[in-house]
Amino acid sequence: MTLDHSDPEGAIAKAAKAYSNWGRWGEDDVLGTLNFLDEAKRREGAALIRRGVSFSLSQRFDIDGPQKGWRRRTNPVHTMLDTGTDAALGNQGLPHGIGGADDVIAMPLQCSTQWDGLGHIFDHGKAWNGRPAEKVVTSDGDLVTGIEHMAPHVAGRGVLLDVGRVVGQDGELPDGFAITEEHLTATAEAHGVRVGRGDLVLVRTGQLSRVRRWRSPHAEGSGGGWGDYAGGPAPGLSFTTAGWLHGSEIAAIATDTWGFEVRPNEFEHAFQPLHQVAIPHLGLLIGEMWDLDALAEDCAADGEYAFWLTAAPLPITGAVGSPVNPIAVK
Amino acid sequence: MTLDHSDPEGAIAKAAKAYSNWGRWGEDDVLGTLNFLDEAKRREGAALIRRGVSFSLSQRFDIDGPQKGWRRRTNPVHTMLDTGTDAALGNQGLPHGIGGADDVIAMPLQCSTQWDGLGHIFDHGKAWNGRPAEKVVTSDGDLVTGIEHMAPHVAGRGVLLDVGRVVGQDGELPDGFAITEEHLTATAEAHGVRVGRGDLVLVRTGQLSRVRRWRSPHAEGSGGGWGDYAGGPAPGLSFTTAGWLHGSEIAAIATDTWGFEVRPNEFEHAFQPLHQVAIPHLGLLIGEMWDLDALAEDCAADGEYAFWLTAAPLPITGAVGSPVNPIAVK
Amino acid sequence: MTLDHSDPEGAIAKAAKAYSNWGRWGEDDVLGTLNFLDEAKRREGAALIRRGVSFSLSQRFDIDGPQKGWRRRTNPVHTMLDTGTDAALGNQGLPHGIGGADDVIAMPLQCSTQWDGLGHIFDHGKAWNGRPAEKVVTSDGDLVTGIEHMAPHVAGRGVLLDVGRVVGQDGELPDGFAITEEHLTATAEAHGVRVGRGDLVLVRTGQLSRVRRWRSPHAEGSGGGWGDYAGGPAPGLSFTTAGWLHGSEIAAIATDTWGFEVRPNEFEHAFQPLHQVAIPHLGLLIGEMWDLDALAEDCAADGEYAFWLTAAPLPITGAVGSPVNPIAVK
Amino acid sequence: MTLDHSDPEGAIAKAAKAYSNWGRWGEDDVLGTLNFLDEAKRREGAALIRRGVSFSLSQRFDIDGPQKGWRRRTNPVHTMLDTGTDAALGNQGLPHGIGGADDVIAMPLQCSTQWDGLGHIFDHGKAWNGRPAEKVVTSDGDLVTGIEHMAPHVAGRGVLLDVGRVVGQDGELPDGFAITEEHLTATAEAHGVRVGRGDLVLVRTGQLSRVRRWRSPHAEGSGGGWGDYAGGPAPGLSFTTAGWLHGSEIAAIATDTWGFEVRPNEFEHAFQPLHQVAIPHLGLLIGEMWDLDALAEDCAADGEYAFWLTAAPLPITGAVGSPVNPIAVK
Repeated sequence: MTLDHSDPEGAIAKAAKAYSNWGRWGEDDVLGTLNFLDEAKRREGAALIRRGVSFSLSQRFDIDGPQKGWRRRTNPVHTMLDTGTDAALGNQGLPHGIGGADDVIAMPLQCSTQWDGLGHIFDHGKAWNGRPAEKVVTSDGDLVTGIEHMAPHVAGRGVLLDVGRVVGQDGELPDGFAITEEHLTATAEAHGVRVGRGDLVLVRTGQLSRVRRWRSPHAEGSGGGWGDYAGGPAPGLSFTTAGWLHGSEIAAIATDTWGFEVRPNEFEHAFQPLHQVAIPHLGLLIGEMWDLDALAEDCAADGEYAFWLTAAPLPITGAVGSPVNPIAVK
Repeated sequence: MTLDHSDPEGAIAKAAKAYSNWGRWGEDDVLGTLNFLDEAKRREGAALIRRGVSFSLSQRFDIDGPQKGWRRRTNPVHTMLDTGTDAALGNQGLPHGIGGADDVIAMPLQCSTQWDGLGHIFDHGKAWNGRPAEKVVTSDGDLVTGIEHMAPHVAGRGVLLDVGRVVGQDGELPDGFAITEEHLTATAEAHGVRVGRGDLVLVRTGQLSRVRRWRSPHAEGSGGGWGDYAGGPAPGLSFTTAGWLHGSEIAAIATDTWGFEVRPNEFEHAFQPLHQVAIPHLGLLIGEMWDLDALAEDCAADGEYAFWLTAAPLPITGAVGSPVNPIAVK
Repeated sequence: MTLDHSDPEGAIAKAAKAYSNWGRWGEDDVLGTLNFLDEAKRREGAALIRRGVSFSLSQRFDIDGPQKGWRRRTNPVHTMLDTGTDAALGNQGLPHGIGGADDVIAMPLQCSTQWDGLGHIFDHGKAWNGRPAEKVVTSDGDLVTGIEHMAPHVAGRGVLLDVGRVVGQDGELPDGFAITEEHLTATAEAHGVRVGRGDLVLVRTGQLSRVRRWRSPHAEGSGGGWGDYAGGPAPGLSFTTAGWLHGSEIAAIATDTWGFEVRPNEFEHAFQPLHQVAIPHLGLLIGEMWDLDALAEDCAADGEYAFWLTAAPLPITGAVGSPVNPIAVK
Repeated sequence: MTLDHSDPEGAIAKAAKAYSNWGRWGEDDVLGTLNFLDEAKRREGAALIRRGVSFSLSQRFDIDGPQKGWRRRTNPVHTMLDTGTDAALGNQGLPHGIGGADDVIAMPLQCSTQWDGLGHIFDHGKAWNGRPAEKVVTSDGDLVTGIEHMAPHVAGRGVLLDVGRVVGQDGELPDGFAITEEHLTATAEAHGVRVGRGDLVLVRTGQLSRVRRWRSPHAEGSGGGWGDYAGGPAPGLSFTTAGWLHGSEIAAIATDTWGFEVRPNEFEHAFQPLHQVAIPHLGLLIGEMWDLDALAEDCAADGEYAFWLTAAPLPITGAVGSPVNPIAVK
């Protein structure tokens, strides 16, 4: 797919039409490409558990996260309802020496490692499967495709495409680097791994490794900050991969970046145009801000880039996204 | 173990001493009984994925939950930062026809299906591994055993003990029913399943099935409410199972009830005495409010009560609990 | 005004038309009836400060409030970021012996003593001054009439109409009692007080006194609960007072009840029809859940029912309501 | 008072002893210097309402505030439970054409214009009136001196000391400028105003005017940000004013800065040493982040620096601070 930069809206419309999955799984569908993930695929994934080693692909959830308030996205505020200090001081009034701690959190569902639900993005007022956005997501949340519907499904065969390692320098792609279908294919070939229908694909750009170095107390000038990880320039998928995302029939895809697609976006004055095609038209489950580094190290070491992956969203009724702690097992 | 009802504090102290795991995994340990779950156990669990069918064991997270405000535990408040109605009406100011929805949640970490972290309960000012509670859990959260440390570990062999089905009537134990070691053993035998070191054990009492019927719009007098599911009388583990919990060397245990142990508790004026032994002394990971009904139906149908289970807590830094969407795969 | 019970929508439309203030203060108006409260009125109010005694008319804001989750209205959840226990135990790492406590709150803006902002209620998609509701209140809040615009204005002459004392039994009106213009006028006459343009009028029904007795630990059967204070049957203003609210040219009005108007509402299948006229058509500032009891006692004692009143909403940008601690000074 | 820079802890201890009000109002006191504000003072304040013009001294409460996450202090997150867009689209299911909007907020109580409660600061584990901090402020909040106790009291005679205008350049003091007793006295003399027992004193440094210019979209390089308003260098009261704060017997004091006292603080490695004396030892009510600019303009114009001031905290049970919308009336 060549990219016509002169007409963003036209290019988006063309891709939307070419790669639409509307109606593919019936008019009542609430799962999108998760439909590709079937029981056979789970059996295939399970066979990849050989050593029994498990990896969390989640960043942490805390106040020191990357969010800077854009669209009221803040970092999590975790506070205690009861503490060990109160317990130790006998302030809790509980019998026989028991003490307890409880806690509460306030956070955007897209603040750290996450899934975008199907109600997260619309194209010209249309949500996944062609539904009118205003009938799907109101102030009461996503009344149709809330992420709770995905609760039991996201467990299957995971594949890591470490594009940073294969295509980048020192394991990292530079900010603004657009990953094309050719990069994805070349990476899979270099890994000796196959990507196919129903797979959960993880694309490592290496940007998070770079941010992690920058955040280190020893990094000069960083002050421990996140820089522009949330919304700034980043490597990511090119708009032109829409066809590959559609044709490969993968069930879901996630990256180690804030925004999944390359930033700045490839059209002028655009905002996440690949999302605009991938979520409402393909019905694709997209993950962001995943921490793929430890898994990538292991894959590089043993040469196995496929594994069992469970990444179940919390069934928050009507949510258009969910924090997630994805677990890969090899 | 016989239960001396006359001296709760003495009975608790005796069990705490008899079943302590303090120091077992070194003085820096932050995982407790999760240490029992090793790579061999994961390979054993993986072999149980035969059909590829997956089950979510999570209740939903929403305002219609069971919490009634006790200890400031409320139900989740999920609100939208952007909606499809605004997108459809062109209120969002985004280019080229894209629209979006975002959301935010405020919730206690123990509001619905959850894990209790190791910092959740203290005994006479002592936290897991003998640490002083006031050095472990302050207003800044659990500085030592925060649930983030468990992030990659909770994936392995799950076993369902459907005590409700085996011991109860019509699949349910009555409120106040104390499940003993004998009930657990008899249930495992009836199922033809073995429980051992490193297993993730799920105990179904059937109380949630009862509450679900009660909440049905067709149930007379219910008004759709939860009754006293959160904190009221319930079946659950007897204090006397402390020895079994210790000796079986299981990695974790969860029930379909609010409080894991039988309620009212077996001592007068007591509050969750089994927690007081199991969390700070055994270092046992305890799950509550899990929805085991669909899985139990399937196990009854195919006779297989062991399966692959992933139940990774969200790595909320310093949390003493975490919401979780456990996924069982058979 | 006689009430045609057979045609709620018609009756509402008729009142809306008859008592509309649309355009009265220009098409850009964001203050509604607060425009009636001018500097002369403030001077008149100031002259009522004779003794220098002040009264808070606010209920408390805490988890033990009346909300039960309707429309996701919960009670406030107040948690600590730092505590005295941590400070005393030296957990805070601050120099020279200083320690601190900080706190955070999550709450609906209408959870306790409050003002309804002008963006709180719409009639057939129209907000105050005839604006389209969808252009006024989006997910970003009230973009036009947010309560921040009222920040400096709500200080002036307050008048208490203790209808419970004058018309009720033992100082209280029964639930379901509809207060008419005649009741308001008779009460003012009994008090020897005049109500006029720009006044801030407080109507005491006595329901809160009744609820307070019920909540007392000594009240039989109460369990300390609020019963149906939030949304249940209550005394309150009759729909027929719309004309008086308009003609009297008062600046604002508040009651000691959850819903201002009588409940159940006077039409079948209705929901707060007086709001539907008073807020979008009159542009009237309405307060709810005010605690008028201490002030009422004092007014009964000294016979003075007019006073200086300050009741400034918090300038929360784009809010459609605000918690408030109204202060009356006599 | 001369300042011994070599011994911060000694200097603090000396001031604490010299200016202590412990026991002055009995051992059960929960009001501190608010005790100075009596009915006579309110009558005196009321007489200052001459024109009837009112000023809000509050900054706004929204996501674009100055907080940067220090000690988990974030800016308010205000979200909608219902909107006008949903109402306009008929999504709300309410009868007869009524529609509604509701909202919710999550915020630190010290995020914008605020009062520090008496439980906000401790000195060597001691809270106001000599109480042990750990018995006063636990995870359950301030059990003794919660800000709800102040609910009816904060209404009286306000005095503006516009030190920025009298002592500064172009109406502003530079960051790091320590305001001494001499500056306060000279300013009062320049204004022709007297400060005395029971007054509510407002000290304008001009820093907020500077920040406001900086935040203007036209300011070069600002990007609309707040810079280091929250916690960075600022003009403010010198530690040496502790004696004046004590001797003047004022009821409360507030500034237009984040931290009330000069920053960087006057001792090395210190943190808010004047707070450490003023709150736990004097029992002084301190306000921060007040917007005094409009009022200051008016005072400069008419030469009247005393006025009626109402600044009632929200009665949040157990809070150690409160947002406030102070209203000055002249």
